[in-house]
Amino acid sequence: MDTHTPYRYLQLAELIVSMIDNGALAPGKRLPSVRAVSEEHHISVFTALRAYRLLEDRGILIARPQSGFYVAGKRRGALALPSASRARAKASTVSISGAVAGLLEHASNSALVPLGCSVPDAALLQSKRLDLALARAARLHGSRYNVYCAPQGDARLRQEIAKRAMRFGHALSPDDMLITSGCTEAVTLALTAVAKRGDTIAVESPTYFGLLHTLEMLGLKALEVPTSPTHGIDIDVLARLLDTSSVAACVLSSNFNNPLGSMMAEADKRALLALLARHAVPLIEDDVYGDIYFGRERPKPFIALDGGANTIYCSSFSKSLAPGYRVGWITAGAYAQQVMERKLAFSLCSPVLPQVALADFLASGAYDAHLRRVRRIFEENLARMTHAIEGSFPADTKVSRPNGGFVLWLELPKGFDSRALFDEALEQGICFAPGDVFSASRRFRNCLRLSAGSGWNDRIENGVRRLGELAGVLAARWDM
Amino acid sequence: MDTHTPYRYLQLAELIVSMIDNGALAPGKRLPSVRAVSEEHHISVFTALRAYRLLEDRGILIARPQSGFYVAGKRRGALALPSASRARAKASTVSISGAVAGLLEHASNSALVPLGCSVPDAALLQSKRLDLALARAARLHGSRYNVYCAPQGDARLRQEIAKRAMRFGHALSPDDMLITSGCTEAVTLALTAVAKRGDTIAVESPTYFGLLHTLEMLGLKALEVPTSPTHGIDIDVLARLLDTSSVAACVLSSNFNNPLGSMMAEADKRALLALLARHAVPLIEDDVYGDIYFGRERPKPFIALDGGANTIYCSSFSKSLAPGYRVGWITAGAYAQQVMERKLAFSLCSPVLPQVALADFLASGAYDAHLRRVRRIFEENLARMTHAIEGSFPADTKVSRPNGGFVLWLELPKGFDSRALFDEALEQGICFAPGDVFSASRRFRNCLRLSAGSGWNDRIENGVRRLGELAGVLAARWDM
Repeated sequence: MDTHTPYRYLQLAELIVSMIDNGALAPGKRLPSVRAVSEEHHISVFTALRAYRLLEDRGILIARPQSGFYVAGKRRGALALPSASRARAKASTVSISGAVAGLLEHASNSALVPLGCSVPDAALLQSKRLDLALARAARLHGSRYNVYCAPQGDARLRQEIAKRAMRFGHALSPDDMLITSGCTEAVTLALTAVAKRGDTIAVESPTYFGLLHTLEMLGLKALEVPTSPTHGIDIDVLARLLDTSSVAACVLSSNFNNPLGSMMAEADKRALLALLARHAVPLIEDDVYGDIYFGRERPKPFIALDGGANTIYCSSFSKSLAPGYRVGWITAGAYAQQVMERKLAFSLCSPVLPQVALADFLASGAYDAHLRRVRRIFEENLARMTHAIEGSFPADTKVSRPNGGFVLWLELPKGFDSRALFDEALEQGICFAPGDVFSASRRFRNCLRLSAGSGWNDRIENGVRRLGELAGVLAARWDM
Repeated sequence: MDTHTPYRYLQLAELIVSMIDNGALAPGKRLPSVRAVSEEHHISVFTALRAYRLLEDRGILIARPQSGFYVAGKRRGALALPSASRARAKASTVSISGAVAGLLEHASNSALVPLGCSVPDAALLQSKRLDLALARAARLHGSRYNVYCAPQGDARLRQEIAKRAMRFGHALSPDDMLITSGCTEAVTLALTAVAKRGDTIAVESPTYFGLLHTLEMLGLKALEVPTSPTHGIDIDVLARLLDTSSVAACVLSSNFNNPLGSMMAEADKRALLALLARHAVPLIEDDVYGDIYFGRERPKPFIALDGGANTIYCSSFSKSLAPGYRVGWITAGAYAQQVMERKLAFSLCSPVLPQVALADFLASGAYDAHLRRVRRIFEENLARMTHAIEGSFPADTKVSRPNGGFVLWLELPKGFDSRALFDEALEQGICFAPGDVFSASRRFRNCLRLSAGSGWNDRIENGVRRLGELAGVLAARWDM
């Protein structure tokens, strides 16, 4: 049975957490033995032990040698959640490129403990099967594909992506899709299709610094909308802002956005879509983390809720499978023609063989097993990282609790300077992303983002703990 | 001896042409026998015969059975050269995207005789060795490269490209270079770095429609500068225009530009550089055809003449080796930082494995032999195409005589409508590029471009001849 439902241990872990949450299992209480629980739930001893170990890693259970597992006094989420950001009435001209380039230079330095870059590392992704598909395509069909393909990209890859989109309830036509150089190019094409220099774009706050950088390079302004670490963008504030500001588009990542990891409820998504449609503001959706969910099913993207009537959908394989392949896609609905013309004008088309390899990989069915594996790893990584943060950062540190993706957002008391921590951490061989790069108005200086995109090991664990200690030293120095 | 200098036949052919040109060999005169000429020049009979056959294909010699080869009455260039375009004082807002998309749709239709698209076909390029390098890189190093690389691109590929640049006399540092998605992205990045929406860009006239399309999408205006089919852009006219117009940049393709195939003399290149430097107008150089020269040595690009002081150099492997790989590069000098930031913002970086494959291919030394082969093929293709045009188009047709590249520019009498010919040709299964897409102000409707990027065969030959007959029918109908 275990071989058919390999994630039974996660189900058991969830069950235990819910029993703790609703009080059925009180702090200090001893859990049933591994053998007992395995018999009761018809699972193997190994699976039961794995669930207990996971909760131990998360600090939810405590293992006492020769005795068993106990509910920890300190529960999951011992640290509070970060606060939602406050509203700003004015759009900001973006000037962040220097900070972004500086950060990325450090983030790609393999000598540093890699907490800085929101990209899964290659060892964790294990893309061997995809690489062999590329090798085969190059060897057998290289000459056939040594041509400019249509700007929309390889037809078979678009079909395979469309097939997958059916699963989250959106009947996407391959003809409506265009293959891009990652989600970055997809969002760039969308922005150039709907906005012109000087226009204002509504964004989450905090938001991905790469988006801010793109806005800056396109001469667009950012209107930062308060965003909750759990529920996403504040629709009421956005509604007020739309009444008074002229906004050319809204760029959102509703599913495990970067850096908060927040997920909007479906009702909120629908309310947001209605609001934007009422103001005729197109929504550019970045769903690059949507496949990395920890719950039972994939959260729906906006496009599945409005059928693409007002949504330009952008995604890629960069966060889940192949950052090096640079393959993303865009479905632009009413703007499809404009997006196609811009792709043609700016880069003609994307390289064909990596697209062919991805089409073969998707058609083989291997992607689902792959996604199950990386989702489990990312969930465990975040649990371990949270545990390490709880054990090392100052007690008033707040930390996000995402249900997907692989980054955490930490908030320290006002006045804490994550830039000073950044400099200190670099000295000690640790990289992370300081909070101010996630805001056009350079807020969030007391915050930071940690990425858990690498396989968990002692180096990472010690890096997080060392960072927490450094944060404590700095906070004490400032007498916070 | 022949095995070491495989292009002796081209040298012999050149010698014969120069003897005809200077009158040493008059029309109607019989040439020495193949055996005699082989002995005199210490070459094989095969090589001598190959030279004679090439000149026969070009219509320069006539073979008479049982008798030998004679100088044709009608000489090479029996058709006159197209005229240089006239000056326009005003910059044009570009609106060409519909025409470009329409043309490209037909140009990629393999059911049509492929005279429309300026891209070498895959069968001619024979990129097997490069494809195997990609297969090997994916198989052996896929995981290592499944990362975002630096926006500048793979360091080894940049080194290999820099090494080759040494040959045309420019000491290029790999650190100054950035790998792009073909030359299209390189030119786009350059334009966004030096110009902003509404600015005016000086371009050759006629010029590559893809450039005009990019200008349109970036909201830039085109200032069309008269360009001679042999000597390139008219420097005197440009000087006058610069005195009265504000120009943000000049985009030029000095070596075998598309569509004219003209090549600027080195002195003219220097004069142009001085003029632009005086006006502080940066030059964006598109050198994508520079490696496909028919003369003894590679013509120098602008960047080798000004050391990059005022030149942004853009090129790619798309015209000579691998259109499907989408690998180009840019060397932006003073604008390197701006270009890097834009690459990062618009597409992050290019896929790594195709870059690794190209680096391996270049390091193997295989590219030089490859270039020698394709240059010879393109030269022969153009000779055969010229011959077919001379034998089928109306006698007052003018045709370019490029010394590199693989396209021809044809000019028919004023009033000739190449759009009507285009429609008629499509009906008969033939594609070409009508002249008006090469101009922002939609001039050159009496012109057309034919591409000789496919291996020569009866289908192509018959396509050209049929097109010539159709042109004759249309011209007669309009009573020209």
